Amino acid sequence: MQFLSDNAASVHPAVWEAMRKADAAASPYDGDSLSVTLDEKMAALFGRDCAALWVATGTAANCLALATMVPPHGAVVCHEEAHIEMDEGGAPGFFLHGAKLLLCQGEGAKLTPDTIRAVIDPIRDDVHQVQPHAISITQASEYGRVYRPEEIAAIRALASERGLGLHMDGARFGNAAAFLDSPAGDVAGAVDALSFGFVKNGAMSAEAIVFFDEGQADIARYRRKRAGHLQSKGRFLAAQIHAMLDGDLWLGNARSANAAAAEIAGACADRLMHPVEANELFVRCTPEEREALREQGFGFYDWGEDAARFVTAWNTREDDALALAKAIASL
Amino acid sequence: MQFLSDNAASVHPAVWEAMRKADAAASPYDGDSLSVTLDEKMAALFGRDCAALWVATGTAANCLALATMVPPHGAVVCHEEAHIEMDEGGAPGFFLHGAKLLLCQGEGAKLTPDTIRAVIDPIRDDVHQVQPHAISITQASEYGRVYRPEEIAAIRALASERGLGLHMDGARFGNAAAFLDSPAGDVAGAVDALSFGFVKNGAMSAEAIVFFDEGQADIARYRRKRAGHLQSKGRFLAAQIHAMLDGDLWLGNARSANAAAAEIAGACADRLMHPVEANELFVRCTPEEREALREQGFGFYDWGEDAARFVTAWNTREDDALALAKAIASL
Amino acid sequence: MQFLSDNAASVHPAVWEAMRKADAAASPYDGDSLSVTLDEKMAALFGRDCAALWVATGTAANCLALATMVPPHGAVVCHEEAHIEMDEGGAPGFFLHGAKLLLCQGEGAKLTPDTIRAVIDPIRDDVHQVQPHAISITQASEYGRVYRPEEIAAIRALASERGLGLHMDGARFGNAAAFLDSPAGDVAGAVDALSFGFVKNGAMSAEAIVFFDEGQADIARYRRKRAGHLQSKGRFLAAQIHAMLDGDLWLGNARSANAAAAEIAGACADRLMHPVEANELFVRCTPEEREALREQGFGFYDWGEDAARFVTAWNTREDDALALAKAIASL
Amino acid sequence: MQFLSDNAASVHPAVWEAMRKADAAASPYDGDSLSVTLDEKMAALFGRDCAALWVATGTAANCLALATMVPPHGAVVCHEEAHIEMDEGGAPGFFLHGAKLLLCQGEGAKLTPDTIRAVIDPIRDDVHQVQPHAISITQASEYGRVYRPEEIAAIRALASERGLGLHMDGARFGNAAAFLDSPAGDVAGAVDALSFGFVKNGAMSAEAIVFFDEGQADIARYRRKRAGHLQSKGRFLAAQIHAMLDGDLWLGNARSANAAAAEIAGACADRLMHPVEANELFVRCTPEEREALREQGFGFYDWGEDAARFVTAWNTREDDALALAKAIASL
Repeated sequence: MQFLSDNAASVHPAVWEAMRKADAAASPYDGDSLSVTLDEKMAALFGRDCAALWVATGTAANCLALATMVPPHGAVVCHEEAHIEMDEGGAPGFFLHGAKLLLCQGEGAKLTPDTIRAVIDPIRDDVHQVQPHAISITQASEYGRVYRPEEIAAIRALASERGLGLHMDGARFGNAAAFLDSPAGDVAGAVDALSFGFVKNGAMSAEAIVFFDEGQADIARYRRKRAGHLQSKGRFLAAQIHAMLDGDLWLGNARSANAAAAEIAGACADRLMHPVEANELFVRCTPEEREALREQGFGFYDWGEDAARFVTAWNTREDDALALAKAIASL
Repeated sequence: MQFLSDNAASVHPAVWEAMRKADAAASPYDGDSLSVTLDEKMAALFGRDCAALWVATGTAANCLALATMVPPHGAVVCHEEAHIEMDEGGAPGFFLHGAKLLLCQGEGAKLTPDTIRAVIDPIRDDVHQVQPHAISITQASEYGRVYRPEEIAAIRALASERGLGLHMDGARFGNAAAFLDSPAGDVAGAVDALSFGFVKNGAMSAEAIVFFDEGQADIARYRRKRAGHLQSKGRFLAAQIHAMLDGDLWLGNARSANAAAAEIAGACADRLMHPVEANELFVRCTPEEREALREQGFGFYDWGEDAARFVTAWNTREDDALALAKAIASL
Repeated sequence: MQFLSDNAASVHPAVWEAMRKADAAASPYDGDSLSVTLDEKMAALFGRDCAALWVATGTAANCLALATMVPPHGAVVCHEEAHIEMDEGGAPGFFLHGAKLLLCQGEGAKLTPDTIRAVIDPIRDDVHQVQPHAISITQASEYGRVYRPEEIAAIRALASERGLGLHMDGARFGNAAAFLDSPAGDVAGAVDALSFGFVKNGAMSAEAIVFFDEGQADIARYRRKRAGHLQSKGRFLAAQIHAMLDGDLWLGNARSANAAAAEIAGACADRLMHPVEANELFVRCTPEEREALREQGFGFYDWGEDAARFVTAWNTREDDALALAKAIASL
Repeated sequence: MQFLSDNAASVHPAVWEAMRKADAAASPYDGDSLSVTLDEKMAALFGRDCAALWVATGTAANCLALATMVPPHGAVVCHEEAHIEMDEGGAPGFFLHGAKLLLCQGEGAKLTPDTIRAVIDPIRDDVHQVQPHAISITQASEYGRVYRPEEIAAIRALASERGLGLHMDGARFGNAAAFLDSPAGDVAGAVDALSFGFVKNGAMSAEAIVFFDEGQADIARYRRKRAGHLQSKGRFLAAQIHAMLDGDLWLGNARSANAAAAEIAGACADRLMHPVEANELFVRCTPEEREALREQGFGFYDWGEDAARFVTAWNTREDDALALAKAIASL
C-alpha cells in the first residue's frame, strides 16, 4: 500500500484513451488540432484569455514560466521550502541564467505579504544587490496547505505595487481547487502564469503552463524549444491535458485523493504537523512507529527524525486509506 | 499520403503495449525496474559498457550529451547543416552555456577529417579564440547519408589526436544501421556518446543518450534533472526504449522506412540531389511539378526553390510509396 | 619600430594627468563627480540624450551593450570577421547567455542591407530557428574601412523595419571620425548603443558604452556589476574618458594615427588589400619580404601567407612611419 | 574625515610610480614582462608553486576562481553574509552559469566545519538537490574577523574529505596577514585559489587570483578573456601588483590601516559588536550619536538601526583616527 508520492501513480484510463485517439498521424510539434485548442479550453476554465503550453515536467513548467518574467540579473521571491528551491536540481538557475531565488519564510510553506516584505524591503535598490522581479507561490503548498483567494489577492497587490510578476506552481492545483470548491479562476487568482499540474493527478507526462499574458507565452514558446521541451509528437501531451480537463477529470481525481487524505487525517489529528487540506499528510511518529507501519506494508517517506509523509493519489484505494488510518490510530 | 516527416508518425503497437504494461505503480524518476535495466540492454547491443539515459527529445539528448564534453568556454565542431545548428532553436547555446558551434562543410552534410581540419587548424591556441572540445556527427546525416565505419574511425582518430570528444546525433541511427547492415557497435563506431533516436522510428516520446564513458553519464544525470528532463513517470520512457530494442524492433522499423524510400528513389534516380541511403529523399522538381504532386494528395516539404523533400517512416504503406514513385516518374 | 597593434600603445600625458587629479579620495563605484558628468559630455558630443557607462575593455563594452538588446534565445547579426565573432573568446556567448551570432559577409568587413538580408531573410519565423534581435557593425571595420553616414542610415532603416536593435563597435571610432571629418553624431548614426573605444587611442583602461536609450543603460548598470566590471575606483576610468573628450583629444589622437597610416599607404598603394581609411594597413608581401622588413626592425603581424598587417597608433612617430613607407617601397 | 570604506582610497605613490614605468610600449594582454613574472613572485611569497592572474575587481577574482572549481550544476558553500552572496549583484550566478550558493551561518561571518556540515550534511546525494563542489571563505571576514591557520586547516580537512575545492576571498588579505603576523602561506592556508586583494589596500585597479592548481589557472585564463576581463594594457595591472608586493608594501599598508582601527577600537571597546582584528569597526550607537559624529565631520555607513561601520584605510591619518576615537569616547 503505497503512500510514497502521487508522482508515480498510474495513468487514468481516460488519459490513456485520449492518447490512443491521438495516435493517427498528425502535425508535428504543437501544430496539431489538440494542441491548438488548448488555449480556448483553458480560457473557458479560468474565465479569462490565456495561452497554454504543454511541457513534460513541472520543473520545466515552473522554470519556463519564471524565465519570461525575470531577467538573468534579477530574482524570484519564493518560500524557503518551495519546490523550485529544494527539489529541482538547480533548474531555476539554469533556465533563468543565474537569476537568484530570494527565500522567505511562512507557515505551512505559504508566503504572506509580511514574509515577502521581510525579504525584499531590506534590498537596497542599487546594482550591488539582486533585485526581485517576480514572486512564485505554490498552490497547494509543499505542506499541502491551500492559499485562500484573499491571500492570493493580498500577494498580488503587493506584487503589483512593487512591479513584480506573480507565478503559481500548481503541481497540485487540482487538490487546492478540490479543497476550496471554488472556480479555477479563483483558485489561481490574478497570477500572471500558472504551472497547472496533471502528472501527479492522473496524467502520464503533461503539464500545462497557462500564461495570462500573451507576450510571455510568445517568449516561452521560443524558450521551450531551446530547452529541448518541444516534443515532435506533442499531440500526445495535448491529448492528456484535454482528457484531464474534459468533464473536470482533474477535479474529480483531486477530490478522490483529498478524500483519502482526509480519511487518514481523521485518524491521527493529534499527530498532524500541518492541517490536511490537500493530499499530503505530515504525521509525527517515532522511528519505531514507522518501522511498525512499514512491517504492515505501508510505503512512505521519513520526514526528518520524528515524522513521516504520506501522500494519497487519485487512485488511492479507499480500503488502503482506511487501513492506514486504522494502523496509525493503533500505534 | 504523408511524406512530410517521420517525426510525427504513429506509435508502434509494441510500444503502446510496453507502455501499458508499465502503468502499474512503480518507483519514480529513473529508479524503476525498466529504467535500471537499460544500461545492460544497451551494453549488449553495442558490445561495450555504457550507461543509457532516457529523455523526451532529440534536442535534449544531443545537448545533454555535448554538455558533458564541452565547457562553457569551448566549442563543438559540427556540419553547417547539422540539426544542432539549424533546427534546435539555439538549444546548444542554452545547454552548453554559450559554448560555440564551429561550422564545417562536407558533402551530404557529412564531416570528414579534412573539412574538420579546415576549421580547427586555423584556430590559434590562445584565449582570444574559442577552442574546440568535441566533434558532433549525424548518423544518418541531415541529407540521409550514412557514415561508413571507416569514415567514423578516421574522424575518431582525428578527435583523439586533438583531445576532442566525439558525439553522434543518431536521430535516425536505425536507418543508418539498416543501410549498413552492420552491428550497432560498428554503426556507432568509437563515439563517446550517442543520441539514439526512437521517436522518428516508432516510439512516442523517448530517446536514449548512450554514454560510453560513465563519468559523463554521471554529469548528465544532474544536468537532465536541472533541465527539467527527468520525468517522474520515467518508466514510460524506459518502456518505449525496451520495446524498441526487444526483437530489434528499431532495426525492423528502420528497414521498412528505408525500403519505402528505396522504392521511391528507384523511380527518380535522375532527380536525386543525394544518394538515398536512409529514409529521406531530396528530389529536384519544379514548383509546377510539386503542385501536381500535391494535387494528387502527397504531402511533403519544399526544399528551396527547385526541390522537394520526402521522408518515409516505419509505417509508410507500401502502396503509398509505390504511388509516389509512380507519380514522380510520371511528372 | 612597432606596428603590431594600437592596443598596447602608451598612455597620453593628458590622460595620466587626469588620472592623477582623480586620486583624491572620492565616492566609490560610479558615484563620483567624474562619472556622473559623463552623460552630459557625451550628450553634447553626440547631439542627443544618452547615458554613458565606463568599462575597462572593448569586449565588455560590446557584450554589455548587446546584452541589453538581445534575449538569451535571440541572435546578433554581425560580419563573419567581426571582433565579437573572431577575437573575444566567446564573450558574446557568455554575456548573452548563449544567444547566437548570425554571420554575414561584406566587403572590407562591412555589412550592407543586402548581406544582412541574405542571412536573415531565410530564417523562418518559428521556434526552431534562432531569431535576430540586433545588428552589430564596427566603425571603423576590422579592415580599417569606414561606414559612411548613408550606409549606416540604410542599415538603421533595415533594423527598424525588422524590429532589430543596432549596435556599433567603435573600438576605433576616433579613426573613423577622423577619416570622415564629420560630427560624432553622424559618424555613429542612429545606433541604439555605441562602444566608444579609447584604449587603442591613448587611454589606459577605459572604454565607454554610450546608450541612446535610457532603459538599456539601466539594464546595463546591473549587468556591469554582475559581470565584475564595476570598479570601486571607477573615477579613474571616468577621468580617462573626460581627458579623451576634452579638447577633442580623441579626435586629435586618431588624426595622428590615420596620418601615419596614410603616409605608409602612399608608399605601397599597389600592395594594399583594402583602401586605407583608418589606421590599419593590410599589405601584400611575401614571407621573404616580411623577413626583410623584420630585419630592419619593424614589428607587425603576418596576415595569412601572403600579407602583413601594420597598425599605427596615436603616438606613432612620423620618422617611423616614413621609415616603414620607404622600406616597403624598397622591397 | 572619511571612514566610509577603504574601497575608494587614494592610490599609493609607489603604485603610481610603477604604473608610470610600465607605460613604455610593450606586449599586449598578459604577455608583457611584468605579467609573466607575477607567478614567480607569488610563489616566493606563498612558498609554493602557483599561477597568478590579474583582474580589475574582487568580484571578477572571486567568480573566476570559483568558476574553475564548480560546474554549472553545482554549488558553492559560503557564509550567508559573504560578499559573493550579498554584494556582488549576482555575479556568482553569472560566472558560474547558475550554480547555487549554499548559505551557512557562523560567528563574525566566519565559517566553521560545524556550520558547513549543518548545511551540506542534509543534502541528499541525488540529482534533485544541488551538490556542493567548493567552499569559499573570506579572510579577513566581512566583519573584519581573521581565520587562524588552524581554523583554515580544519575547513580544508573537511573540504578534502568531501571532495570540495577551497577558495579564499582575500579582499582584505593584507589586513588579515598584518593581524596574524604570519607568513602569507599560513594566512592563506592550503586553499586551492586565493583572490588576493590590492584595490582596498593602495592599488588602483588590480587584484590577483592566485591559483595553486595550474589546471585551474589554465581554465581561468580562457574565462577571463571570455568575461571581458583581459585588458590589452594589462601591464598596468601587473605593475600595480608588483608594486604592492615589492618591499611588502601590501603588508605595510595593511598594518597602517589596522593600527588606525585599533586606535579607534581602544576608545570604544564596550560598543564593539565584533572584536577588531582588521580594519573594520562595527560600533553600537544611536541615531542621535551618529548624527553627532557626522556633524563633527566623520563619514561612515549606518549599520542597521543601532550601529555604524567605520573602515580605516592604508592612508587614514593618525590624527583622524585619534579624532574619531576621541569623538566616540565622548558620546
